[in-house]
Amino acid sequence: MKNILGREIPEYIEGYGKVIPFEGAFKNAGTKLKKEVKLNSVMPDNEKVLPDMDSVFDKVSLKDGMTISFHHHLRNGDNVLNLVVDAIAKRGIKNITLAASALFPNNFPLIEHIKNGVITKIVTNYMSGPIAEEISRGILKTPVIMHTHGGRARAIESGDLHIDVAFIAAPTADNYGNINGLYGESACGALGYAVADAQCADMVVAVTDNLVPYPACPIEISQIYVDYIVKVDSIGDPDGIVSGTTKITKDPVGLKIAKMASEVMVASGLVKNEMSFQTGAGGISLAVAAELRKYMKENAIVGSFASGGITGYLVDMFEEGLFRSLFDVQCFDMQAIKSYVSTYKHQRMSASMYANSDNKGAVVNKLDIVILGATEIDTNFNVNVTTGSDGTIMGGSGGHSDTAAGAKLTIIVTQLTKARLPIIKDNITTITTPGESIDVIVTERGIAVNPKRTDIIEKLKNTNLPIRKIGELKDIAEKITGKPEAIEFSDEIVAVIEYRDGSVIDVVRKPL
Amino acid sequence: MKNILGREIPEYIEGYGKVIPFEGAFKNAGTKLKKEVKLNSVMPDNEKVLPDMDSVFDKVSLKDGMTISFHHHLRNGDNVLNLVVDAIAKRGIKNITLAASALFPNNFPLIEHIKNGVITKIVTNYMSGPIAEEISRGILKTPVIMHTHGGRARAIESGDLHIDVAFIAAPTADNYGNINGLYGESACGALGYAVADAQCADMVVAVTDNLVPYPACPIEISQIYVDYIVKVDSIGDPDGIVSGTTKITKDPVGLKIAKMASEVMVASGLVKNEMSFQTGAGGISLAVAAELRKYMKENAIVGSFASGGITGYLVDMFEEGLFRSLFDVQCFDMQAIKSYVSTYKHQRMSASMYANSDNKGAVVNKLDIVILGATEIDTNFNVNVTTGSDGTIMGGSGGHSDTAAGAKLTIIVTQLTKARLPIIKDNITTITTPGESIDVIVTERGIAVNPKRTDIIEKLKNTNLPIRKIGELKDIAEKITGKPEAIEFSDEIVAVIEYRDGSVIDVVRKPL
Repeated sequence: MKNILGREIPEYIEGYGKVIPFEGAFKNAGTKLKKEVKLNSVMPDNEKVLPDMDSVFDKVSLKDGMTISFHHHLRNGDNVLNLVVDAIAKRGIKNITLAASALFPNNFPLIEHIKNGVITKIVTNYMSGPIAEEISRGILKTPVIMHTHGGRARAIESGDLHIDVAFIAAPTADNYGNINGLYGESACGALGYAVADAQCADMVVAVTDNLVPYPACPIEISQIYVDYIVKVDSIGDPDGIVSGTTKITKDPVGLKIAKMASEVMVASGLVKNEMSFQTGAGGISLAVAAELRKYMKENAIVGSFASGGITGYLVDMFEEGLFRSLFDVQCFDMQAIKSYVSTYKHQRMSASMYANSDNKGAVVNKLDIVILGATEIDTNFNVNVTTGSDGTIMGGSGGHSDTAAGAKLTIIVTQLTKARLPIIKDNITTITTPGESIDVIVTERGIAVNPKRTDIIEKLKNTNLPIRKIGELKDIAEKITGKPEAIEFSDEIVAVIEYRDGSVIDVVRKPL
Repeated sequence: MKNILGREIPEYIEGYGKVIPFEGAFKNAGTKLKKEVKLNSVMPDNEKVLPDMDSVFDKVSLKDGMTISFHHHLRNGDNVLNLVVDAIAKRGIKNITLAASALFPNNFPLIEHIKNGVITKIVTNYMSGPIAEEISRGILKTPVIMHTHGGRARAIESGDLHIDVAFIAAPTADNYGNINGLYGESACGALGYAVADAQCADMVVAVTDNLVPYPACPIEISQIYVDYIVKVDSIGDPDGIVSGTTKITKDPVGLKIAKMASEVMVASGLVKNEMSFQTGAGGISLAVAAELRKYMKENAIVGSFASGGITGYLVDMFEEGLFRSLFDVQCFDMQAIKSYVSTYKHQRMSASMYANSDNKGAVVNKLDIVILGATEIDTNFNVNVTTGSDGTIMGGSGGHSDTAAGAKLTIIVTQLTKARLPIIKDNITTITTPGESIDVIVTERGIAVNPKRTDIIEKLKNTNLPIRKIGELKDIAEKITGKPEAIEFSDEIVAVIEYRDGSVIDVVRKPL
């Protein structure tokens, strides 16, 4: 069958199940259920701290076929996922479903565990590096399920994704399971992506290298959700935890794109008091923030909030009074962590509060403007951030689809061509975010506005910005790069791309 | 039948249902279920702010037979409960179950609403004033269900107490339902008792007189739990909200009791680094805190936390460095509110985190010492804080049973006689907290230690404290007051006293 975007998807996928086809960004609104949660009550004399991982596995009765979960706040510096999976392998346990909010290059040891049958299924929001490449080549027997950040919280809360044991890397924990990410050798800041796991898993284990006297405050994850605590030598490598790449681009093309994006924002009328804003940590995205900062200062504009993964750059804007508050699901750098503990106006949010479509209103619903990237865009404005144009998985939605759906103005900033390949084309390898959520595409060669946004088209008429039809941008790109040869794919599905509501927006097939 | 404490309780109570008899403080530990929660998802273009209470009732489809809930953080200054119930009565809706975490003298208008059939059932943790007196005289057709603070959270989370619509008095709210109690004319501080209602009710309405620009931070109750917001003229009377009575007693008898209680604490060996402590806001309780403060300073002791309803007195101790942190379920005064926003070490806790026996470990489980009061004590150490000795309801457990169950050392401080009545007697009117949770009773005429605490008895042998058998204390009291005449009760049950685990520890019958 084909879903509403015309993507060919089987009605039933082996190792995934029955497919609910994507029907539009808001087609599944209505009455929702948060699933029943099972837990073991803890009495005053119960001890929660266990001496080692084997004791943990005994206590949680870890066994073949279970689903275990991890958060990705330690990013490419995380030791916990590899450590736990290695220990599981040593115990001879097989057939584990790994529900990790994201996977990074340092998770390459999973490749062996997949080959050995320890891990037979993976659910994640994002993956990059060797594990993503190998999965693209089909080493997993069942397709990876890829969620959005909000979609993962939704899936966990609704019971679509049932977690038997959540392992929570805890930069700081006390002996009763209160956790924060703010202190310790492996400090990472907000722990928003771990909240649903803690609240809904059958068993919850805090894995820490920094066991502090009770109570560990501020408490990000409460003792009332944590069964056991285990201390290990090191949960992470600080160099890999805090991203060092959150610098504004110096590339003149990137700066030009940022300037144009800023002019689009201003022309839209949304850059005014009480505005809200989100941007990623990429070089062009930060350059957009820099342009916005300048404009807000010059015009004495005070916004309500900036949100997302928080960078030092957004902290600067907040501290200058350009935003009254920050909503933080994860901290990208040390400056964000420091700000987070220094004022209650820099607030944490869970992934559910950030982006879940099935609660009573996520923060993304309150967004005015979001700046996003793309690896490919089709002429219906559908965006791919999951695969490269060779079909290899090298990312995933993360909050892309969530913020695009929620924001009043979603702007994609991208160079028109990258590595001699066009970004805008007739057909893209994978649809991550539907075109209906994308309002404007800004490239160095011109700006395309989604035709359904007649209001924006009207407003941009009063500017000198180079507005083009998206087909024209495609043509310009193809003139530069030539029309890329279509890659051929086998029938084998290596990943199922779930939209935030749990419907299937696309699948990734193994390239031939 | 009789429960394990010998209280005569029917197996089935009309208007309540089948009785689970109390079998001991920790007999119901084990696997627990948090119930499924139903909610309506909110899309980006949905508005949550409604113009008036009638629009709210329309939107939440309020109708006969529903259960509505309220928190008591505005105490005797709360306007919201009366306002909502009046509006319900005006609409002609009947047969409402009122689940209020506590009821105060200012809730007297409920008496008319009960007589008119608007309110036909009440569930609460504490009540005082005219409403309590009238209920004691049998104006409600069904018995009031009285919970502990932790028991209410447990009942709501488990589904034992299903709430159709929670009305949350919100000193500060934004247009998407983020709520805090810290600012506004009716600031009350922490909102711990409203959290379970917000998380588990079918519909949640924030009632505010202080609608602020988005986002209202710090967020105590998140937008993801709130369906609608309605603005009213005033949610409370500041004079009634913040208790003005949290002063240390000047009565020499009270001071003597406090001094003795302090010596018991020290002799127990629990007054040391990392200790935790809770005390009420009563005059003698605060005097105990004053003694402890002196001792901790003199001996350079730093405790881990003080908890409970937080008073300025505990804030002083915290700011002096005697406790590293505070756990706050409700603020008793302005000083507590100010502290609460000034440092993340003064932390909020929900009623569930505070005291629910059915989560993975409440804060009460980590308590070393709690100081509590009593209106009556029997020779098995069972304590009444629910009824006066004339059988009239004038209080309720609140956190009494919860903290007593959790703490390593539970001390009751009380004068041996009050208003010419003995406090210790053979039979007490109502059992609120079981004797197994009570360790020491300190009166001006002597100290009784629960015989099962042989360890404490042993330690107190090395002191000059006047240790007596509890029977001796009873005899002394009766010598002063004479043996009180037993009141006679009818068979009519006006209140069912649930222990924190949902079993029935006692019932209150209507006096003849």
